[in-house]
Amino acid sequence: MSKHFGGRLSRAADETARAGLAGLVVTPSADLVYLAGYDPPPLYRLTALLIRPGHDPLLVVPELEQPRALASPAAKLVEVTSWRDGDDPYELVRTVLSSSGSGTFGVTDRMLAVHLLGFQGVLPGAKFIAASPLLATLRARKDPSEIHLLGRAARGADEAFRRMVREGLEGRTEQDVARSIGTHLVDAGHESVAFTIVGSGPNGASPHHDPTTREVRMGDPVVLDYGGRVGGYCSDITRTVSVGEPSEEFREVYEIVREAQEAAFRAVAPGVPAQEIDRSARRIIEDAGYGDLFIHRTGHGIGLEEHEPPYMVEGNAEPLEVGMTFSIEPGIYLDGRFGVRIEDIVTVTADGGQRLNNAPRELTVVG
Amino acid sequence: MSKHFGGRLSRAADETARAGLAGLVVTPSADLVYLAGYDPPPLYRLTALLIRPGHDPLLVVPELEQPRALASPAAKLVEVTSWRDGDDPYELVRTVLSSSGSGTFGVTDRMLAVHLLGFQGVLPGAKFIAASPLLATLRARKDPSEIHLLGRAARGADEAFRRMVREGLEGRTEQDVARSIGTHLVDAGHESVAFTIVGSGPNGASPHHDPTTREVRMGDPVVLDYGGRVGGYCSDITRTVSVGEPSEEFREVYEIVREAQEAAFRAVAPGVPAQEIDRSARRIIEDAGYGDLFIHRTGHGIGLEEHEPPYMVEGNAEPLEVGMTFSIEPGIYLDGRFGVRIEDIVTVTADGGQRLNNAPRELTVVG
Repeated sequence: MSKHFGGRLSRAADETARAGLAGLVVTPSADLVYLAGYDPPPLYRLTALLIRPGHDPLLVVPELEQPRALASPAAKLVEVTSWRDGDDPYELVRTVLSSSGSGTFGVTDRMLAVHLLGFQGVLPGAKFIAASPLLATLRARKDPSEIHLLGRAARGADEAFRRMVREGLEGRTEQDVARSIGTHLVDAGHESVAFTIVGSGPNGASPHHDPTTREVRMGDPVVLDYGGRVGGYCSDITRTVSVGEPSEEFREVYEIVREAQEAAFRAVAPGVPAQEIDRSARRIIEDAGYGDLFIHRTGHGIGLEEHEPPYMVEGNAEPLEVGMTFSIEPGIYLDGRFGVRIEDIVTVTADGGQRLNNAPRELTVVG
Repeated sequence: MSKHFGGRLSRAADETARAGLAGLVVTPSADLVYLAGYDPPPLYRLTALLIRPGHDPLLVVPELEQPRALASPAAKLVEVTSWRDGDDPYELVRTVLSSSGSGTFGVTDRMLAVHLLGFQGVLPGAKFIAASPLLATLRARKDPSEIHLLGRAARGADEAFRRMVREGLEGRTEQDVARSIGTHLVDAGHESVAFTIVGSGPNGASPHHDPTTREVRMGDPVVLDYGGRVGGYCSDITRTVSVGEPSEEFREVYEIVREAQEAAFRAVAPGVPAQEIDRSARRIIEDAGYGDLFIHRTGHGIGLEEHEPPYMVEGNAEPLEVGMTFSIEPGIYLDGRFGVRIEDIVTVTADGGQRLNNAPRELTVVG
């Protein structure tokens, strides 16, 4: 993959110039992995990639991590300089950036505040803004190698779902089910597990529920929402299953969510505003009288991060483009009773949306 | 443990007043876990605990995470308010903080830059500084329940080392050894594994080396540095072993590092400046002629984070206090040849230092 990085760095420098920025300051994050293939441990010592139009990119690293940086793909693409414990790394960055000290710099959204404060302290004449609007123009449109990895991740998540269905849930704690999902993800080719939400019965009404010792009972709706990584790229899938025969109400709510998810999927095409995906799902849920219980946006971009631009949310009029890849995950949450959410990862092609997940979307009854 | 949290919040408010700050803004991080027992997923939606002298603390959460927040210890201690996707959460925080809008606020060091920029945008008259100097006065002095957990974590790390010694390293890849360490940590009671550095032969000269497919050979020095969590608290241990008989040079370098580690440990006592711990180790390594090859500070605080204040580094004159707990980990790194590092976690008692790790510090020869 390392052949991609050079192009990414120069495109980032081009976008920086086009936006009228003096430079980008990229600290450890998906931005740094994307641009330079470098992924150091997320500690407090400053690592920063400095990108400025008309200059070669420079990677500033703590001295004790210099061998690691030099062994990464970044070493072929950027100059590496180091600082030693006890030195002031912000001062070092200031000397590099001082010629553009009164300009505007874009910073990694995930930069630690303590580093941003450090930069603001040594460059009082400079202005700092979030780099995501600029970097999203690169990162949001996935190239074929990225879609390949997102597809492998999605298929692994599908396979984990099939194994969970075979295994059954009844009588098991949410925590036990969560552990089992993690094992299946790894067995299905994931290199790591990022999160496993298991919301049984009333716990399903909490979209980001943390698995508990509650035992899954016959008749429970159960929300399974999980993801991990393959080749650095994320999976994220949600299926809501019925343990034993579903009640009529659960079946009805499920069908509304399924139709909303289908409608949002059918709305996907190049040029369509992102908020139209949200509206397409929301309209169906509102028309069914559950609008107040769909308490989150319809989707988020996915790639090197679980959540990244573009967001399928009211107010985001940005047009979808070929290669953009995101979740479509409407839900209805009945406080104290149950929740339903159905989520697929979808990529934009010239012909419309293409689902990367293919686990069944019809209501699955499990034991 | 939830009984601790109330006291922590009021002490944080007291420290905030004493420092002349208008408030603290605490986003998901060890700060939030420490103060309110709340640990939401590290996504981009804003979660923020607002602490101001004379006001009740307020926790702002995304609506879809409100049930999770209400199920956490935080719900008993603070008021919870929520915002919905599409709303502007910074604007919500501004309305809460506006009465102190021209004051100075301390922010979590690990706050995402995009959030700090959001706060700076809506409160242009306010000043923001890193909260760590203030919060470190609370977090750096561990209470007995914290030292208990750090001790359990350290003993689990010791046990993993003993199992690695029995298992042997020769002929295995660094990655295989790393996986095995992870398994032993979990078997010895860790709930998660944070990192596993395995630096064999020349790779040991890279302090934060990422395990590779290099096979460990007879005669290799191997640096094993790893850690994880028990009850949320971190372990962190380094031992350098000899696979088969050590060379005379390796034995000599090992003894210098061992003496440096011992000297630094003996220097630990209440009232001693933190930098004196660094100097005690460095003096021995410098006197032996290896000063330039000890390329990092001697240690870092440890608790809910792997690295946190206080730092054992030249320039930090802050006096050690009873309960402070940190690593002592001098090292010597011979580029292209090998490295040696020995690390224990040490807590400050009225009588001096007490090691939490007790794996052997004499050079261990393994198969």
